[in-house]
Amino acid sequence: MQILDGQLASRQLKDTLKLQVAQLVIEGKKVPHLAAVLIGNNGASETYVNAKVKACSEIGFKSTLIRLEDTVSENKLLGIIEELNGDIEIDGILVQLPLPSHISDEKVINAIEPSKDVDGFHPVSIGRMVQGLPTFIPATPHGIMLLLQHYQIDTTGFHAVILGRSNIVGRPISILLSSNSNPGNCTVTVCHSKTRDLGNLCRQADMVIAALGRPEFVKADMIKEQAVVIDVGITRVPDATKKKGFALKGDVLFSEVSSKCSFITPVPGGVGPMTIAALLKNTFKACTDKN
Amino acid sequence: MQILDGQLASRQLKDTLKLQVAQLVIEGKKVPHLAAVLIGNNGASETYVNAKVKACSEIGFKSTLIRLEDTVSENKLLGIIEELNGDIEIDGILVQLPLPSHISDEKVINAIEPSKDVDGFHPVSIGRMVQGLPTFIPATPHGIMLLLQHYQIDTTGFHAVILGRSNIVGRPISILLSSNSNPGNCTVTVCHSKTRDLGNLCRQADMVIAALGRPEFVKADMIKEQAVVIDVGITRVPDATKKKGFALKGDVLFSEVSSKCSFITPVPGGVGPMTIAALLKNTFKACTDKN
Repeated sequence: MQILDGQLASRQLKDTLKLQVAQLVIEGKKVPHLAAVLIGNNGASETYVNAKVKACSEIGFKSTLIRLEDTVSENKLLGIIEELNGDIEIDGILVQLPLPSHISDEKVINAIEPSKDVDGFHPVSIGRMVQGLPTFIPATPHGIMLLLQHYQIDTTGFHAVILGRSNIVGRPISILLSSNSNPGNCTVTVCHSKTRDLGNLCRQADMVIAALGRPEFVKADMIKEQAVVIDVGITRVPDATKKKGFALKGDVLFSEVSSKCSFITPVPGGVGPMTIAALLKNTFKACTDKN
Repeated sequence: MQILDGQLASRQLKDTLKLQVAQLVIEGKKVPHLAAVLIGNNGASETYVNAKVKACSEIGFKSTLIRLEDTVSENKLLGIIEELNGDIEIDGILVQLPLPSHISDEKVINAIEPSKDVDGFHPVSIGRMVQGLPTFIPATPHGIMLLLQHYQIDTTGFHAVILGRSNIVGRPISILLSSNSNPGNCTVTVCHSKTRDLGNLCRQADMVIAALGRPEFVKADMIKEQAVVIDVGITRVPDATKKKGFALKGDVLFSEVSSKCSFITPVPGGVGPMTIAALLKNTFKACTDKN
């Protein structure tokens, strides 16, 4: 069994981007600039946004963090996005989800100018991804693809079973993996809460992508020998023995599954860091496509 | 075994639309108007477009058929689309595919104003479909969903195996069937040319959707007893005994499979007529959304 080390792979991607940014500077060109909008005080959201902003600074991107109270009106937020759309200094815009319940995800996502949609959630970005056209791929599935690429895992002909059909992970990774590309060219099965006999499907899989958000749901008896296991879940589970009061758990019972599979992502340190690397790559693309 | 009769179901849908159009007339409102662009002299394309135009007239829609030589330049075609986009009389625009090789499908599809994109091929339409938002669903997958609805086939929890990953059929129907809806809520497996052991996957399926364009590819030994079989294929196979010199063959060997399954679509008379009904529904929506 080999660990798919997201820390390592993302560091290499970031090192490459850092060199590319330095090259832009030498050429007197614009440096990528990410604007991140964070609403309210959700602990996980704060952690994610801070990690993104920190990653920008590490590799020489500019970033602007806009913090708003969770009482901010939808109109006010849409106005801020409008300003960022029009600001030629800003290359990429991300609005950290989830949003407060009085604000429409759809309106906010649709308001972002597609050429700055580095989270890849705008309908135009998704439609172009489905059609196999150049676009911004959402960060988590993009990160998974980059990780498979990094470890040169040839997925052609794999039966990939995906647990979860969210717009953020399950759905886009199912599209990418079944596309005529490498990584890709998998036979893809999408499972969800209505799936019957999930275990039987998983046991047929050459690759399982777990993106349900149910801690340690995937057990060893659900995995075929030598399968590739990608764990997208990251749930805070109360744990009094930890300083922060919680432990981070993936969707896979690592202790059992890791001895059976060929490759596996740890949690944390697997898909998470790749997600950030993918966001940075998208932001770099947004900047250089334009200039 | 029961035949899923696309002629019958589409006639009912058209009758309903006809009444709705009559109601629009009574209310002094605009009647739906479809513009169809046909390039060159491909026999199948001509047949399809004529059937669409005829269906419009049957139910009281207006239609405009624009015929162009297959030597038409891309710019000329884009100019015509631009005019149709701006013409308030036109509600829906379809450009019959395939296009001559010197014209970019992507440019042409992207040129159609999304609010008139009744074929549902624009990235915005596809992206919104993936996100489960109101949009134009491409006619063939939309027609399949309408047929399942017509026969009140509850697909919840079905394992649906889809043969083919095209942007026109396989990909969108995989998204629709795995969505949280009914028809829908299927566990969906997308198969294609790189799939290993297709037969084994098909035999697990509660529903098989064959959209490969390979005549009579699906045999009885690939189908589970009492499965639902949807045949999207329609290939012209040379046949000297026919007046036209060809026979229409589906992707399913009907003579074998029909005795084993619970429901099956014939070819012709299954998915084909539903595709036209779906296009009409999209055109009606384009008209009434606007007015």
